[in-house]
Amino acid sequence: MSDPQLTDLERLREIQAEISDLGRARALLFWDERTQMPRAGHAGRAEQLATLVRVRHRLLASDELASLLERLTAAELPDSTDAATVRMGARDAEKARRVPAELRAEMARASSDGEHAWQLARESGDAAPFLPALRRNIELSHRYVECFDEVDHPYDALLDDYEPGARTASVKPLLAELRAGLVPIVAAIAANPDAVDDAPLRGRFDPLAQERAVKRVVAGLPLADGTWRIDPTAHPFATSISHGDVRLTTKYDADRLSYALYSSIHEAGHGIYESGIPQELRRGPLGRPPSLGFHESQSRLWENWVGRSGPFAASLLPILREEMPGRFDEVDPEALRRASCKAGPSPIRVEADEVTYNLHIALRFELELALFEGALEPAELPEAWTELTRSYLGIEPSGVAEGVLQDVHWAAGAFGYFPTYSLGNLIAAQLWELAADDDPALTTETSLGRLGPLREWLVEKLHHHAGTMLPAELADHVLGGPIEAEPLLRHLRARYGALYGFI
Amino acid sequence: MSDPQLTDLERLREIQAEISDLGRARALLFWDERTQMPRAGHAGRAEQLATLVRVRHRLLASDELASLLERLTAAELPDSTDAATVRMGARDAEKARRVPAELRAEMARASSDGEHAWQLARESGDAAPFLPALRRNIELSHRYVECFDEVDHPYDALLDDYEPGARTASVKPLLAELRAGLVPIVAAIAANPDAVDDAPLRGRFDPLAQERAVKRVVAGLPLADGTWRIDPTAHPFATSISHGDVRLTTKYDADRLSYALYSSIHEAGHGIYESGIPQELRRGPLGRPPSLGFHESQSRLWENWVGRSGPFAASLLPILREEMPGRFDEVDPEALRRASCKAGPSPIRVEADEVTYNLHIALRFELELALFEGALEPAELPEAWTELTRSYLGIEPSGVAEGVLQDVHWAAGAFGYFPTYSLGNLIAAQLWELAADDDPALTTETSLGRLGPLREWLVEKLHHHAGTMLPAELADHVLGGPIEAEPLLRHLRARYGALYGFI
Repeated sequence: MSDPQLTDLERLREIQAEISDLGRARALLFWDERTQMPRAGHAGRAEQLATLVRVRHRLLASDELASLLERLTAAELPDSTDAATVRMGARDAEKARRVPAELRAEMARASSDGEHAWQLARESGDAAPFLPALRRNIELSHRYVECFDEVDHPYDALLDDYEPGARTASVKPLLAELRAGLVPIVAAIAANPDAVDDAPLRGRFDPLAQERAVKRVVAGLPLADGTWRIDPTAHPFATSISHGDVRLTTKYDADRLSYALYSSIHEAGHGIYESGIPQELRRGPLGRPPSLGFHESQSRLWENWVGRSGPFAASLLPILREEMPGRFDEVDPEALRRASCKAGPSPIRVEADEVTYNLHIALRFELELALFEGALEPAELPEAWTELTRSYLGIEPSGVAEGVLQDVHWAAGAFGYFPTYSLGNLIAAQLWELAADDDPALTTETSLGRLGPLREWLVEKLHHHAGTMLPAELADHVLGGPIEAEPLLRHLRARYGALYGFI
Repeated sequence: MSDPQLTDLERLREIQAEISDLGRARALLFWDERTQMPRAGHAGRAEQLATLVRVRHRLLASDELASLLERLTAAELPDSTDAATVRMGARDAEKARRVPAELRAEMARASSDGEHAWQLARESGDAAPFLPALRRNIELSHRYVECFDEVDHPYDALLDDYEPGARTASVKPLLAELRAGLVPIVAAIAANPDAVDDAPLRGRFDPLAQERAVKRVVAGLPLADGTWRIDPTAHPFATSISHGDVRLTTKYDADRLSYALYSSIHEAGHGIYESGIPQELRRGPLGRPPSLGFHESQSRLWENWVGRSGPFAASLLPILREEMPGRFDEVDPEALRRASCKAGPSPIRVEADEVTYNLHIALRFELELALFEGALEPAELPEAWTELTRSYLGIEPSGVAEGVLQDVHWAAGAFGYFPTYSLGNLIAAQLWELAADDDPALTTETSLGRLGPLREWLVEKLHHHAGTMLPAELADHVLGGPIEAEPLLRHLRARYGALYGFI
């Protein structure tokens, strides 16, 4: 079927481009399902998605691709991009070939069944009917781990899907250090809870007015006209369909303006990263950020470091005043900034502030480790969740929807995903310090419409590397060393110390 | 890669389901490009679409599928659905294998280049820069025809892509008979042009009000809630993504209400047909209407026979009055019906009334035949177009955008497509007479919200057969014989004779 005139490298790029296109097509079907699809389209869509995944996987695990990669690896190509294409392509193909097709199919089915069981359990307010699906996902994940018999820790194989090359042995102490550093900050905030007033962002906000405001906010971020759109959905996400096509989503909650505002900035951060990937790398294994941790670093940087800054609040206020007449007349920029930085323990991860957020992750990470080290049974999970919430956040979940059933990840069989959220926060903090060192204006001139220089710095520093290195290599190259906890703790102590009066 | 436990028939269905899913995924990417995509997504989308087409074609032309079909054909399966699956599947696979991959790729490129050249030529108002691309498309179509060396007439191979099994030898006299029958009707209308006043549908109409009205109209057609949506686009079309997921499109022209109204009913007709395809046939070669002609019969039936009827106008009027306050106060149902039936020569096919429409098709069909019989050079096309317009419609196109450049079909290399529009009109007329014979109420109770029985009759009569037969077989089965010109002529004489006073 292939043209005999092609060199190995040309043929490799051809196959990789098809693999990439099938992945992007899948991303579009996923986006469409969550933002546009008539509701009766579900059954058909599930089949279409499964087919795209299967056909893509077949290409990735094909003997032809494996032989090409073997020959090209042996050839030790001189060009660094070619060499990286072969190296990362071989990593993807090898992982695809390790896992038998039947196991993949079973995992896909169990994931889909698990999401369904999760939905039902949430509606009934009882975790019990969800436990068999959870147990099944864990069993299958154990079988998945066994396909990678060289790992040091079973959790390593899971982590690797989201944070390639990361090891439990290094993530565990890093997140433990972060947690230890957070405890006194959270305690200090809890001691003075009324220091920050978030009244300006509470109350009723017309969803249509929110939508108009959000579109103006995103238009003021450094995303080029005609390259993005934003739509409402149940659980916000961002996805990139091609170089000039980024899809953001958000949710307009009539009772809270902050949710749509900051989730939009967050998703736009993901989009800005994708837009910075060089076009010529897009259709191949290098054409994406190297890990979820790095991806999350960009969403967090725009959401928290930019979006909750003083200059940003000052530029946001006129938009809110225009779109919600009368509503913000008595609010000044500093009051808006303070409201956007309200912190304190709350039961739901996706609604948590930037300080307590990482304790939600610590809780999930510890439970996942315990599950895969065999120290915890799935049936013990709801109780263990409640206990850790009490211990880390000092609060009591009101039910399983605020407890073990609040996230879909485990229902979908995605273990090893959660720690990447905290890694993203850590990387963002390190990047912010580097930007301030390079040019303080990058971190102080953060008003809407004036963020081009920060984007350019990020493209130059991080985005243009795309997926040419493994996360740890990229950290060395970009951050000058491994991911660290201290820069994030410094940021949180400085910002929240000032707000809550503990510095 | 395939499970050795599967029977040949099971494995056939598995491959066919993948082929179907890839086709539907492509349809969604196409729909998205025309209704949702940020404009900078074009380059990436073109690559993604090409990949889906290529991967799908590879499955369809695969040796594995060919051997399965050969064995299953020899097995003469007793079940009629199984046998039809094998027969239609073998037809699709055989056609795919006849055409070399390079020719397909060249045609795809020439089609894309042709659309681009067409766009530029339209903008410049000069057909000349478009002619090389047109010549290229014709050359490649000739090479395509040569892949099917058993055809009686070169045009047969082209026709077959849209109307499987149809022959030039039978379509030509049928459309000639239609044209001959239309001439006196058009002349009689032209003799009394002011008999019908379309003032109620002319003037300025707020596009947002049009959109609200159109959504209510489509909701009153027999499409189930949660199975469809309608979006604005440049050139309206309908597509079906899965059993419960129909996507309609329309265009809101501020100067004409009729365009959005009747194009929406037209596209909804396509959607109603797709919704009537049995779900269990969807993911395979039987899971679609057997031809474009049959597909068009349904869009036309809903647009012209239902949509331009008196009861329909009476049920439409309250919607228009509510959505466009004041605008329709002086209009009664009969005036609205008459306005919707305004006829007379006009230069643009997609804006033509149901009488002159078929003369637009006759013109294109004759020019296509002349091109493929070698009687006409591409360079002579603009002039030949003008001449035939003069001869058939008695009018002069004001420029190439109203002439040879008005449709994208030839630019995209789609020859053999146009006649299916007239075949659709003919089939619709035959079906309407059958419905009236079965139960007159089906054709007289045509108000919005009361069209369920007509849909049920069509599902029972036509839709549920899906693609189990070739169009000629389906015509025999459903219409009781071949497609005929007289029923359509009877309908046009009756309706327009009454309106224009020539009966």
